Amino acid sequence: MAHVPQDAPEMVRTSAPEHLNMNIGEAMFSQRAIRRLKTDPISDGDLQTVLEAAAKAPNGGNVQPGRFLVLRDRETIGRFGALYREAWWAKRRDQKLPWADSEDRGQIPDDDKVHQSAALLADEIKDAPVVILAFTVAPGLTRAGLGVAHSVYPAVQNLMLAARALGIGSTLTTLHPTVMERVYAMFDIPDNADFHCCIPLGYPRGRFGPTARFPTSHTTYWDRWDQPPPWK
Amino acid sequence: MAHVPQDAPEMVRTSAPEHLNMNIGEAMFSQRAIRRLKTDPISDGDLQTVLEAAAKAPNGGNVQPGRFLVLRDRETIGRFGALYREAWWAKRRDQKLPWADSEDRGQIPDDDKVHQSAALLADEIKDAPVVILAFTVAPGLTRAGLGVAHSVYPAVQNLMLAARALGIGSTLTTLHPTVMERVYAMFDIPDNADFHCCIPLGYPRGRFGPTARFPTSHTTYWDRWDQPPPWK
Repeated sequence: MAHVPQDAPEMVRTSAPEHLNMNIGEAMFSQRAIRRLKTDPISDGDLQTVLEAAAKAPNGGNVQPGRFLVLRDRETIGRFGALYREAWWAKRRDQKLPWADSEDRGQIPDDDKVHQSAALLADEIKDAPVVILAFTVAPGLTRAGLGVAHSVYPAVQNLMLAARALGIGSTLTTLHPTVMERVYAMFDIPDNADFHCCIPLGYPRGRFGPTARFPTSHTTYWDRWDQPPPWK
Repeated sequence: MAHVPQDAPEMVRTSAPEHLNMNIGEAMFSQRAIRRLKTDPISDGDLQTVLEAAAKAPNGGNVQPGRFLVLRDRETIGRFGALYREAWWAKRRDQKLPWADSEDRGQIPDDDKVHQSAALLADEIKDAPVVILAFTVAPGLTRAGLGVAHSVYPAVQNLMLAARALGIGSTLTTLHPTVMERVYAMFDIPDNADFHCCIPLGYPRGRFGPTARFPTSHTTYWDRWDQPPPWK
């Protein structure tokens, strides 16, 4: 295990908490993005469970570069939420969306449900019970930058699936460069930690349910690019 | 849904196949990297199930840029396997590992289990029953490059977790630039598709089991970087 730095703690082999017991098919096939969150608190025990699940995900060479910053303090989430909202609108200005200068979700067309819902989250994230920020660090290794995405996003997905299995909603979101320096300063994040994504958590105001996706016959190829699989 | 290109097929809301029914905690907490694979075939039905599970994962704005190239043909996997092996050793030469010039796994120290096991896979992947290559395409969008990792790795993790729930082993691997041009040519992959990772699948010669990880008290921070969570 030449990759593991010498100051790393001993590794452990934990087993699954008994209450993390939903049928995996049900969890995966009903993992909608939940952006309308109740303000009800999430217990420390449930947060530990979803973070244990994250830790079990595959990662390159078992280096385990993933780090999770869990925001629980109300005032802290309030201050972070203001930066999140600023970043959300900055990204829409970069995309030159016609309503992006307004910073007012009332200006988003009613039929643009995706942006309506995401803008609502940008307004409300300050009241989310928990926000988790995902990073990678690579102590003792050459900085791999975005090349370590494969060592953090499987963990993020385990975290979100475990949350769903506990009835907790989440969505995977990103930030915008315009706020990154302030986010790093706000939490004393060192420069050698790479930010990847932001996951607000909360019990859903709506419901979990099936997700709309392209048929897998459109997204799967068989032995050669563009050759369809043996199903419709 | 302004992001969806006009030639995209209608989206569907499928429910979970009945046989995808393992307890989610058991699946997540026993998802070891399986590199010693039986050559027994995997059914098309099970492949469809793991690809449906992949499709359900979160992705940015529901653009669904992920594409999966499933290799099943024996002769094709044999040719790909030779490139995979070449890439594996090229990466170890880049890392300047003292045994990397040998291209002989007999030269890897016995106590370096991670490289022993990965080198065995490099020798044996040519006989794997299935190899899946994961890509992203972004039709009609500005090329986001590695920025779309968050739209493919959650799907890859769903695929691997669903496989584990069906008793099928897998491991997440990458390739090396030295072989990429030949891989693209071998399968007629267009230049606007970005390769992300390679997932060999097969029934395990060994067993699934718990994974060794740092305690989450080491990888989780609470409200501020380096501030521990309320558990050991």
